[in-house]
Amino acid sequence: MANKLTDADIELLKEAQIAIVTTVNPDGSLHSTPTWVDTDGEAVIINTSVGRKKHRNIEQFKHVSICVVDSKQPYRWVSVSGKGEFETGGADAHIDAMAKKYLGQDTYPFRTEGEVRVMVRVVPTKRLGS
Amino acid sequence: MANKLTDADIELLKEAQIAIVTTVNPDGSLHSTPTWVDTDGEAVIINTSVGRKKHRNIEQFKHVSICVVDSKQPYRWVSVSGKGEFETGGADAHIDAMAKKYLGQDTYPFRTEGEVRVMVRVVPTKRLGS
Repeated sequence: MANKLTDADIELLKEAQIAIVTTVNPDGSLHSTPTWVDTDGEAVIINTSVGRKKHRNIEQFKHVSICVVDSKQPYRWVSVSGKGEFETGGADAHIDAMAKKYLGQDTYPFRTEGEVRVMVRVVPTKRLGS
Repeated sequence: MANKLTDADIELLKEAQIAIVTTVNPDGSLHSTPTWVDTDGEAVIINTSVGRKKHRNIEQFKHVSICVVDSKQPYRWVSVSGKGEFETGGADAHIDAMAKKYLGQDTYPFRTEGEVRVMVRVVPTKRLGS
């Protein structure tokens, strides 16, 4: 129970805040980048492309952490860690919804030819936060 | 050379921005938390206490990533990964300097009895960013 997202976490994750997503590289070093973020109330969700670094790292090691700090109130934050699960069904519509949330645009404008979008769902094994 | 901090990175790290610091837990899962950050121009530096989670994790696995995103401009960011090196000498004066930077106070107000402060220096093995 203590590892579930709180209502305050869900509210924060629904806002257009930037998440830092960390995965493990093949040599054991860590890879952290700023990323758009979403939630379905149970999992924290990001959207990447098949074959990109984050996707490859999670395929190999599973472990992911996602930390979101309110850009206006640094003491309002949530950090989850868990194992990433991939979901390609609906991932195209999802990246468009993310473009709406973060850019106010109906369609994600940065698609590249042939890319396959994939959602990564992280159900918190551990939750930290304010 | 490509893994050195750029002048723009150093400028960002000198500002009172919040960093997300990630370390590896004993079970391989990831631990990410918001943290004050500093730089000496070569390393990215954080300040924690001996025996706390980040210190214990870095003692065991060394790997650290530190990612800073400008709270006002999300496309201005830097992420470094590398192995953390501890430095206790000067760490007390350093946390006071951090309190000045982030809180405008001359003395760090959150000291606990008997705590030993420690700086973690991360010279980038890998640098990503804007």
